[in-house]
Amino acid sequence: MGAEIIDGKQTAAEIRASLKQQIEAFDGEDMPVLSVVRVGDDDAGRVYVRNKKKAAEEVGIGCEILEFAGSIGENALLESVAELNDNPHINGIIVQQPLPKQINPQKILEAISPDKDVDGFGALNIGKTALKESGAVLAATPKGIIRLLDKYCGDLRGKHAVIIGRSNIVGRPLALLLLNRDCTVTVCHSKTQDLPKISRTADILIAACGCPKMVQKDWIKPGAAVIDVGINRDENGKLCGDVDFDTVKENAGFITPVPGGVGPMTVAMLLENTWEAYKKQQTGQTSSCCCGHHHCHCGHH
Amino acid sequence: MGAEIIDGKQTAAEIRASLKQQIEAFDGEDMPVLSVVRVGDDDAGRVYVRNKKKAAEEVGIGCEILEFAGSIGENALLESVAELNDNPHINGIIVQQPLPKQINPQKILEAISPDKDVDGFGALNIGKTALKESGAVLAATPKGIIRLLDKYCGDLRGKHAVIIGRSNIVGRPLALLLLNRDCTVTVCHSKTQDLPKISRTADILIAACGCPKMVQKDWIKPGAAVIDVGINRDENGKLCGDVDFDTVKENAGFITPVPGGVGPMTVAMLLENTWEAYKKQQTGQTSSCCCGHHHCHCGHH
Repeated sequence: MGAEIIDGKQTAAEIRASLKQQIEAFDGEDMPVLSVVRVGDDDAGRVYVRNKKKAAEEVGIGCEILEFAGSIGENALLESVAELNDNPHINGIIVQQPLPKQINPQKILEAISPDKDVDGFGALNIGKTALKESGAVLAATPKGIIRLLDKYCGDLRGKHAVIIGRSNIVGRPLALLLLNRDCTVTVCHSKTQDLPKISRTADILIAACGCPKMVQKDWIKPGAAVIDVGINRDENGKLCGDVDFDTVKENAGFITPVPGGVGPMTVAMLLENTWEAYKKQQTGQTSSCCCGHHHCHCGHH
Repeated sequence: MGAEIIDGKQTAAEIRASLKQQIEAFDGEDMPVLSVVRVGDDDAGRVYVRNKKKAAEEVGIGCEILEFAGSIGENALLESVAELNDNPHINGIIVQQPLPKQINPQKILEAISPDKDVDGFGALNIGKTALKESGAVLAATPKGIIRLLDKYCGDLRGKHAVIIGRSNIVGRPLALLLLNRDCTVTVCHSKTQDLPKISRTADILIAACGCPKMVQKDWIKPGAAVIDVGINRDENGKLCGDVDFDTVKENAGFITPVPGGVGPMTVAMLLENTWEAYKKQQTGQTSSCCCGHHHCHCGHH
């Protein structure tokens, strides 16, 4: 027995291959371009940015990295974002987190033009998602999770999804997307009482709290789909998620590994969002949707 | 025994009295003005608009009603909204629903300047609420519900709030507000399985589904706070909510009546939002907040 492994690495590779094909076949004036803004000396951030650039270029998306010293002021950074907004050759803009203390990250995020906000982090895109409006750029990680659930877990309607964690980039937008897909949705967090009991009611359990191996085997309804968004180091310095994978997989029906689960999907969705932003800017038409479906049947377009 | 009645009528009257005092004391160049747009021959809509005008004028907010024939085109209505946006003497704009079929209501709502969107229905305001940003205009009914819970039910942190209904004007923004207030939040709807069982886990149960007397006594955890957003007619033509008040009140700890519960709070919050929009437009400063607190301690300002 044991859970089926949700293979995010393979799924993401298929999505990137499909993107590459679509981008090659598209008769556009120039190629899609993603601009990545990075500030300061954070080594992890540098690695993330390099990986995004490599992934982008492999599918035919240009990637320009703008690096700034950690001492840059908020206004100077805002000016750079404004220039990227105005540059017609840039289709997507992301600002790598974390930012230095003197800079308000939300202010920078909100300065990105909603059409170029390919992380889907800005208030307008989140609000459109909340209201089930078409044309929202969907937050990359939640969108990737929906795509995995669609591939592995069949119809989501009426399922009870429990999300542990309420961050702006995962928990909150994911709750809205799952609601748009007709799940009953519960959002839990550090103030939640009796988290194991609530977790046991989940048909779909999403761990996005940043606590190494917190989710235990006896938190799992037998057969549930378990999605692990965490990336932590365990006591031996080994990568691990928010789920105690080795024991939880005995109860779960489906489970994402760490690494190789949600992580690769986030990058694939970032590229897809950039490609969709490019097409929208070239053709004036949107192909994005409120519900995260790959082939959308939500009736909102 | 039996539940304490949450007196929305009285609470709203106190809020309106406080608003009146603040507005009289404010040394502004002109008075706050709310513009209400109404389309077509809907009698109920006409009554609602008249009540809002009366309530506004009683606290010292001017209220201009713009009425259009039901045959008006979408573009003509959009132009009117644009004029109201540009008019510096108008501080708040609401468009009475429902609108005729030829008009996309979301398109009209999104055309209202976010600063004047005193219903708090637009994507930018909902998105800012979702991201717990300051400066959002909070949706009037959810904001009114938070105010009632604050007055009657003490600290909301860690309480499990179950919302039945996921409308854009109540269920969705209320879920976000309750999450900002550290509740564990579950959103249920027509596709939810075993709704009574989930309802019984609620410390705070909000019925906003539009089904007369659907919520039954055995859905209630003893002592829970029950908030009824419904306004329906029962089989005898009498006003009733989504909660079977007479039986539920035996199990609940607190309960809103219909009428006299949530309804008056919605109007009071609409007036408060208009007053806050006016102050913001006069002084450039915002007093609104992400969490619905009257006296905000959320640390976000």
